[in-house]
Amino acid sequence: MPKQNLISFGSDNHSGVHPQILDAMFSANNKYAASYETDEDSTKLKKWIQQNWGATDSHLVFNGTAANVLAISTALRSHQAVLCSDISHLNVDECGAPEKLLGCKLIPIPHRDGKIPLSEISQFLIRRGDQHASQIKMISITQPTELGTVYTLEELQQLRELCDREKLFLHIDGARLANACVHLQCDFKDILKFADVASVGGTKNGLLFGELVVIMTASLNQDFKFIRKQAMQLPSKTQFMARAFLAYLQTQLWRDIAIHQSLLTKDMAQKIKELVPVNYPVESNAVFCCLPKDIVKALREEFFFYVWNEHTFECRLMTSFCTTQEEIDLFVTKLKTLLSRGKI
Amino acid sequence: MPKQNLISFGSDNHSGVHPQILDAMFSANNKYAASYETDEDSTKLKKWIQQNWGATDSHLVFNGTAANVLAISTALRSHQAVLCSDISHLNVDECGAPEKLLGCKLIPIPHRDGKIPLSEISQFLIRRGDQHASQIKMISITQPTELGTVYTLEELQQLRELCDREKLFLHIDGARLANACVHLQCDFKDILKFADVASVGGTKNGLLFGELVVIMTASLNQDFKFIRKQAMQLPSKTQFMARAFLAYLQTQLWRDIAIHQSLLTKDMAQKIKELVPVNYPVESNAVFCCLPKDIVKALREEFFFYVWNEHTFECRLMTSFCTTQEEIDLFVTKLKTLLSRGKI
Amino acid sequence: MPKQNLISFGSDNHSGVHPQILDAMFSANNKYAASYETDEDSTKLKKWIQQNWGATDSHLVFNGTAANVLAISTALRSHQAVLCSDISHLNVDECGAPEKLLGCKLIPIPHRDGKIPLSEISQFLIRRGDQHASQIKMISITQPTELGTVYTLEELQQLRELCDREKLFLHIDGARLANACVHLQCDFKDILKFADVASVGGTKNGLLFGELVVIMTASLNQDFKFIRKQAMQLPSKTQFMARAFLAYLQTQLWRDIAIHQSLLTKDMAQKIKELVPVNYPVESNAVFCCLPKDIVKALREEFFFYVWNEHTFECRLMTSFCTTQEEIDLFVTKLKTLLSRGKI
Amino acid sequence: MPKQNLISFGSDNHSGVHPQILDAMFSANNKYAASYETDEDSTKLKKWIQQNWGATDSHLVFNGTAANVLAISTALRSHQAVLCSDISHLNVDECGAPEKLLGCKLIPIPHRDGKIPLSEISQFLIRRGDQHASQIKMISITQPTELGTVYTLEELQQLRELCDREKLFLHIDGARLANACVHLQCDFKDILKFADVASVGGTKNGLLFGELVVIMTASLNQDFKFIRKQAMQLPSKTQFMARAFLAYLQTQLWRDIAIHQSLLTKDMAQKIKELVPVNYPVESNAVFCCLPKDIVKALREEFFFYVWNEHTFECRLMTSFCTTQEEIDLFVTKLKTLLSRGKI
Repeated sequence: MPKQNLISFGSDNHSGVHPQILDAMFSANNKYAASYETDEDSTKLKKWIQQNWGATDSHLVFNGTAANVLAISTALRSHQAVLCSDISHLNVDECGAPEKLLGCKLIPIPHRDGKIPLSEISQFLIRRGDQHASQIKMISITQPTELGTVYTLEELQQLRELCDREKLFLHIDGARLANACVHLQCDFKDILKFADVASVGGTKNGLLFGELVVIMTASLNQDFKFIRKQAMQLPSKTQFMARAFLAYLQTQLWRDIAIHQSLLTKDMAQKIKELVPVNYPVESNAVFCCLPKDIVKALREEFFFYVWNEHTFECRLMTSFCTTQEEIDLFVTKLKTLLSRGKI
Repeated sequence: MPKQNLISFGSDNHSGVHPQILDAMFSANNKYAASYETDEDSTKLKKWIQQNWGATDSHLVFNGTAANVLAISTALRSHQAVLCSDISHLNVDECGAPEKLLGCKLIPIPHRDGKIPLSEISQFLIRRGDQHASQIKMISITQPTELGTVYTLEELQQLRELCDREKLFLHIDGARLANACVHLQCDFKDILKFADVASVGGTKNGLLFGELVVIMTASLNQDFKFIRKQAMQLPSKTQFMARAFLAYLQTQLWRDIAIHQSLLTKDMAQKIKELVPVNYPVESNAVFCCLPKDIVKALREEFFFYVWNEHTFECRLMTSFCTTQEEIDLFVTKLKTLLSRGKI
Repeated sequence: MPKQNLISFGSDNHSGVHPQILDAMFSANNKYAASYETDEDSTKLKKWIQQNWGATDSHLVFNGTAANVLAISTALRSHQAVLCSDISHLNVDECGAPEKLLGCKLIPIPHRDGKIPLSEISQFLIRRGDQHASQIKMISITQPTELGTVYTLEELQQLRELCDREKLFLHIDGARLANACVHLQCDFKDILKFADVASVGGTKNGLLFGELVVIMTASLNQDFKFIRKQAMQLPSKTQFMARAFLAYLQTQLWRDIAIHQSLLTKDMAQKIKELVPVNYPVESNAVFCCLPKDIVKALREEFFFYVWNEHTFECRLMTSFCTTQEEIDLFVTKLKTLLSRGKI
Repeated sequence: MPKQNLISFGSDNHSGVHPQILDAMFSANNKYAASYETDEDSTKLKKWIQQNWGATDSHLVFNGTAANVLAISTALRSHQAVLCSDISHLNVDECGAPEKLLGCKLIPIPHRDGKIPLSEISQFLIRRGDQHASQIKMISITQPTELGTVYTLEELQQLRELCDREKLFLHIDGARLANACVHLQCDFKDILKFADVASVGGTKNGLLFGELVVIMTASLNQDFKFIRKQAMQLPSKTQFMARAFLAYLQTQLWRDIAIHQSLLTKDMAQKIKELVPVNYPVESNAVFCCLPKDIVKALREEFFFYVWNEHTFECRLMTSFCTTQEEIDLFVTKLKTLLSRGKI
């Protein structure tokens, strides 16, 4: 875990709350509001999403794990399975929450640069109707992926067609969806239209907390409020969460933040590439590269970041709304120094 | 649901965030902090609670449902049961979260003024060792109860002795524990010492969100971090939650708020009693009374509050940190007017 | 637990397998059969039930707990609740299986002679649409009840009408349904027609093992084979189970057994009434009466039976397909002797 | 699914009940016995297993899915994970029962001839202590494997040592454990001693139904009876199951059956090898080979067997206690004819 006040490239949730969002949240802190998503701001948010994204409905939950699990719960029964990439957050970073809450099986498919290889999906669609086998009923993708790559709109179109053909639901884990939008030069709605249900993140994008379960296919919007409550995910003072999302979405702050990240991340990747190989296409706000163990150790005296792979010492460097050019230059300079020292 | 900006006696979570807590939360919004309860503030909070309450450990979660369910999960396996009052929040207001998450049975015992009648517990402790029956292994009480009454320290002592004798765990749902402390003129630790595990609330006491699972019995403090994560209750930017709790607990703000509520609630009860009967001893921040249906309707044009019983039109009136004397007087005056009109 | 070979009035599952059923089961033990309910006998059984009971479908499972839980699973999601009598097998004798497997809440309603009092149901149908409360969506009754009483066809009709009016499903736990049929002088179908889904028992009626989930409402017959498999209830060599049920149902052996039980149970009740009060109307194969503790102890030297209530020493005496008149007379004589001795 | 009375090489559960087991089961069908594993025969079975296998305890359940899931439940909490082969029955043939019942994640490791490659296990033991990741706490192997291969005693020893070193539990799925014993020329106890908990099969070895959860590590033997009941796996008339197992185990009938299978399977494999390649070492009672699609179709007019792989048309041929030399010769002759026809 990072020392306090180290410069952190650890995760975009190591930054606090974006000032504009903070202001918006607490502009409403005057006396009484209805709770549990029945307040005026929550209603306003729901309507905005319906109108701007073509969604059937949207629902606030506390965190990304919950958004993913509850999004899946709208479509699947426990004997059904989700096909997802072997390194998806859903599969490896939820401590088994989908299995626990849904009773569903996750079927991992080996990724290629973080993405599910479309041409390999069909070989997983076996034993359909066989009562001994969990029945794949959903594909879940992360956009951008855990490795910072982004499915193109064409790939999304092909996935949608495959889902339609095979009668599968498509879930998009969009914890950092804004970053994908900026890469694809499109709006949330241009990606969401391919999904049946999606998780759209706030926490990793400058909010204090809160994620959205966005329902695109009307038949999936049943009894969500009960499911959420029973899953312990009904927030109380929702006016604050709703105001935060409205500030983030309505003013296009989301785009400003994601562009800021994109520029800095590409710059960082460019500079690192001159020193060590960068492992995947840099399409959102993360750079992956393998570094020598002792250099990792030395770097972590001044900067925090995660070692992504215990075996290869692949590291992840991630930017947030508050990362600065200066911080990146400091990091690259330090890395350069350490590497050159190592060579002598 | 309340109209916006109506004066609300609906619940203490209809108020926003206490200004002192708000200031404390965002005093830390400067650059990077570790996430997931590994930040300095969370560590500080844990230590404070260990030192001041004699707790083994404490853990942040998002809301009260989660605090209750995860507190129970530290002690029970799914074939075991919780004995709780028939009107406990756990039993009737969690939409079945304990059953879903824990697979446990809740065994309701008819309440007396909101409390579990101690003398009747033993008759529920039957079929022990019988493989066909869920085995009662925990008693869960709410302090103060859902009807605003408070278990005395003597009653807590007797409950503890019964639990020891019968090898049961004791859980205290303390969503509004501060109010009980003020009534009993004691500290949190004086109540918590009777429990094996407790839920201590923030959301209903002026925080934005966040509750504590406080573990008093060391053997129950196993693998909590995994259980919490799998239950989708691991918050991300915990420094904000931790600072809020520190501000609430360390400065005795909790006591100031609860005293404020106590004084206003007693005043309100006193004035209502002159008009209609008040149903239970007023020992925390709620007043219950039955009102004629048309008067309820008229009152709710100006004030929000809940009809607690669909059949008897028993209403609950609850004060919060931001309730004012003026608001209470407005309510009582209106009620008086409506009742006198009704009589003519 | 009973000593071996004591005469047992403990339960109808203390008897072995009825000879006619045994013969039928193993008439098929010659070489190969498809497994997992895809064999010819299982298909024959399904068809017979569809044709004779007007059922949509029926499914074999191992035991009564599973029949009840899986029957409920066809209709309910985890945030919904089942209204059942407080002493129903479902509520007190499944060790929390419904909570564990379904995540649903059971809401107990105080029984009257074992039955749910129809006039009191409506007061439990509260908070509909309130996201904080488990939503009652099913009524489950036991026919005959755990106390040996039987709902009349009129009562069933009224229950059905209430369910239709309130949009609830009706489940019948028919672990001993044959006994109810004989009491009501009707066929299985005359009772099942009121249900949406039912459990029909084999184990307690002379079979080795096996129960049926009978689906009366077509919309509930979805994906059952997967649900059953995932619930670990898919039997392998189903031809034996199917032949047993065919022998039991097709030849009206069920009626012969239930008539045998009815005659003996009424005789037993009559004779016991001359000695001690019998507690409930005797309408199936059980007699309940309170006996002095020391007499219970002495009786259990020669006969096995259960003490139903640890506090009142209410005992349950149950007959099975192999109970004889001689065994009953031995019991009554012994009881008479012990009671008269006690008086001196 | 097979046509009735086709010769079946489909599975060893396509055969009925071994005559000696049948006789033993129903030798006890005279009057009363205690139910729910409290009868004399069940006690006798438990004792025999404790004495002969060095087990702490053993418990009867209905089927193999339940034996596996409940065996695991003795050791794991829901945030922990099981490492198993990607083609293990546990992973692909239980329709997600482990996920549903336990809430655990299964982590699949690519098999080599059906076995978990020991040298590759350590690379899966990552992220230990990381709250975001399911924590591997158990390795589950199938013995013999789903491909008919058998772990040697040396391999088992190495696995045990690895488990001890890494503080993992070892589960053995022994649905056909007798076949492994005969291959290794050893007794059940010589394999079971390496396990913490095991599933030992009856259904696939000539019993009507029933499997054993055998607990080798004493600390895992807690509250099993409640867990089993809540999991809907408590059988009623256990004297029949217990007698079947006693007949199977005590008289060494298990060895006779497994030797019979071994001889026939090796003969079959030898004869098939002359026609088409056999895919894996033949070490128990299954032969795998790829056959042309149209030959599969023609063969299945007279014999039933499963196509194991929809893509490659790999077929599984399995012998049971009642397979005869004649049946094998008929099959091989037919295959030979079809293949030679194809060549012309």
